[in-house]
Amino acid sequence: MVRVLVVHDEGLLRSALVKLLGSDEGLEVMSLSPRADVPDHDTWQTEVCVVDGDCLEGPEAAPGAPFRARWGDRLVVLTTPERPGVLRRAFEGGALGLVDKDASAERLIAAVHRVAKGERYLDEPLTVALLEGAEMPLTTRELGVLSLAAQGSPVAEIAARLHLSRGTVRNYLATAIRKVGARNRVDAIRIVQNAGWT
Amino acid sequence: MVRVLVVHDEGLLRSALVKLLGSDEGLEVMSLSPRADVPDHDTWQTEVCVVDGDCLEGPEAAPGAPFRARWGDRLVVLTTPERPGVLRRAFEGGALGLVDKDASAERLIAAVHRVAKGERYLDEPLTVALLEGAEMPLTTRELGVLSLAAQGSPVAEIAARLHLSRGTVRNYLATAIRKVGARNRVDAIRIVQNAGWT
Repeated sequence: MVRVLVVHDEGLLRSALVKLLGSDEGLEVMSLSPRADVPDHDTWQTEVCVVDGDCLEGPEAAPGAPFRARWGDRLVVLTTPERPGVLRRAFEGGALGLVDKDASAERLIAAVHRVAKGERYLDEPLTVALLEGAEMPLTTRELGVLSLAAQGSPVAEIAARLHLSRGTVRNYLATAIRKVGARNRVDAIRIVQNAGWT
Repeated sequence: MVRVLVVHDEGLLRSALVKLLGSDEGLEVMSLSPRADVPDHDTWQTEVCVVDGDCLEGPEAAPGAPFRARWGDRLVVLTTPERPGVLRRAFEGGALGLVDKDASAERLIAAVHRVAKGERYLDEPLTVALLEGAEMPLTTRELGVLSLAAQGSPVAEIAARLHLSRGTVRNYLATAIRKVGARNRVDAIRIVQNAGWT
């Protein structure tokens, strides 16, 4: 019997995933909201954590860190080829399992069993996306400036918050726009957000 | 026995919702990708459609229309209080069921049975959001201009596409920014997208 924890930010889909995994007789399933604290290791003793890739977002604050600290490489991350940023973060973070959100129930169940044994499970469509996927082209600083702009902060505010001059902030934004092949600031934000790089 | 169709854009969560609804003995469940064509009425004869609110998005192209045409008011829309635009569109479109994505499995199953009988099911947290929720403050024109800007189109391109002068496009953008209480163009796009108004 493999003990699995499901983490997804929507309660209804969390219940649905528990039902789906629980249909396999070899799995015992619990679930958790990503907004809740990760429970004490000894209480649940789950061996594998199935987590929505969007719950691991944000390279700055590293919100995926508690999962990696608690389950190590015994993570099955759900994501899509359209989010290369999330995919790469999960892969480089060392998660053994990567499953396409468009996969069948059987593939998810197979992934959980493989990861429980310490084996890698990389879903075919995601492998292709990983191989094709370009590296994140922005430096941490450029991404940081763009992320603040994406939250609606004007240049002066970004400058004050990061202790930079306005000219430097404008330079970072211009470089970021050029590097991601965007037409303007709004376009750069759209490209970076869609790819899951923020 | 109530025949239900589940529409969600992620295959894995579609399977999971089918499993969840199928655990109720009174429901027979099928599922469909929103990218697929709505099947011929006579083939499946489903009475209720459970659809992810995000599949109904976009006021311009009215992608929710095929669902309303096919199931009338026998729709259960899954959404959250954080997306007042989606919520309002579903409500005003006449969907009988509105269920919070954070609800329990039991509430979704109860909603399906109620809607099958032609009764309304409005989840508590969503009722509050509907009552509190402001009307969409933008005109169709302002929203159209902002939507194009959100896709990264520069002012000149928006002007050409909508057969407007650049000055008029800038005026629409300025009005939109003011109306949604934004600090700048990027902020207005963020506010409108988060609310589910585009």
